[in-house]
Amino acid sequence: MSPSSQSPQLLSLQNRLGYSFQDLQILKLALTHRSAGRSNNERLEFLGDSFVNHVIAQRLYVQFPKASEGQLTRLRSKLVRGTFLATLGEKYALGECLTLGVGERKSGGRHRSSILADTVEAVAGAILLDAGYEIAAPVILNWFTDALLELQVDGDKDSKTLLQEWLQARNLPLPNYDLVSVEGPDHAQEFEVACLINGQKNAFSGRGSSRRNAEQQAAFVAMGELGND
Amino acid sequence: MSPSSQSPQLLSLQNRLGYSFQDLQILKLALTHRSAGRSNNERLEFLGDSFVNHVIAQRLYVQFPKASEGQLTRLRSKLVRGTFLATLGEKYALGECLTLGVGERKSGGRHRSSILADTVEAVAGAILLDAGYEIAAPVILNWFTDALLELQVDGDKDSKTLLQEWLQARNLPLPNYDLVSVEGPDHAQEFEVACLINGQKNAFSGRGSSRRNAEQQAAFVAMGELGND
Repeated sequence: MSPSSQSPQLLSLQNRLGYSFQDLQILKLALTHRSAGRSNNERLEFLGDSFVNHVIAQRLYVQFPKASEGQLTRLRSKLVRGTFLATLGEKYALGECLTLGVGERKSGGRHRSSILADTVEAVAGAILLDAGYEIAAPVILNWFTDALLELQVDGDKDSKTLLQEWLQARNLPLPNYDLVSVEGPDHAQEFEVACLINGQKNAFSGRGSSRRNAEQQAAFVAMGELGND
Repeated sequence: MSPSSQSPQLLSLQNRLGYSFQDLQILKLALTHRSAGRSNNERLEFLGDSFVNHVIAQRLYVQFPKASEGQLTRLRSKLVRGTFLATLGEKYALGECLTLGVGERKSGGRHRSSILADTVEAVAGAILLDAGYEIAAPVILNWFTDALLELQVDGDKDSKTLLQEWLQARNLPLPNYDLVSVEGPDHAQEFEVACLINGQKNAFSGRGSSRRNAEQQAAFVAMGELGND
């Protein structure tokens, strides 16, 4: 699909989602609510629901090697529950691209949480069909990056705390976190932070939708490097 | 892992499962019930559950292009419910390879449906970790081949019926199904059937765990070929 034949709205949506469709019809189907007719996104939602569940489950399995099955289940439910998926739908402004029936359009369906959450799943299913598993999985994971960074197993410590404790145990000074840049429009800013550690030549870089998340990410990267020494 | 360093039991299990592990420790973990200690298969079961769900969902999405979301959900539940997974666990004789705690061993845990079903999921998760998605997915799908062939959407017709109707609509004679071979031990026979159609040079071949399934599979293949003419 050449960019010129696409609506600016769909082009911009794909930028936000971090994926450019080969077959734009699949994306359009994913954005079509059942109120708009028989050809709608319900089947894609079925597919995407299981896809998102699986991608998140696999990521949590790796990210929390000591978590029990029960803890993993609770962590996943935080990310795949409707209320959270709806916030993703809002973040990516899916509402403005939805095709709705007249009734839903008039009653504010564009902003309804359940519709947004279902559409997030349908779009995930659409990306899977369009790109295949290996390409689609990291795209979907990327939507959850901030939420994944904030997750903690009951009693687990966040990356900044872990890094601080690691340095203290070695009688090293605490790290400094410097704000490197803030990019993007007001409603979708991205922060870059550098984590500077005494005795380390290079800074560890982190990005996130808030300064706090960027710092956590930088500390996470630092712990990955230092922990392997 | 060289075959010589494996127990004959695990070697035979991997043959039945259709997958040979690179890291046998993952398989052993998948076969370790929680009654046997802290290092057990519960985390792998969490991973495998979502994996099996997703692989089946994707297959159903493709196999039943006209099924509604509700129909797809009902079809999937037939395949991923515990009672069905337990029959797979019996078919592959997982019970004889299980590591159980003393209590479970004495009370017949080896044959308990819930344990067998959970272990099927854990083994699926283990194959995913060992092989990655692209290799693991078809291995798991293969376990469900017969069940998938027997599935019908409410009101849908099976492949033999569809083929018969397709031929009748064109005033062609009905197909013949010939048994080509029966292979394997008594409890795991595989039937091969050839579907012969008047005017078609080549026979269409089907395999299955029963003659009926092999015929359905052959008709399915024939419809795929003829329907595209």
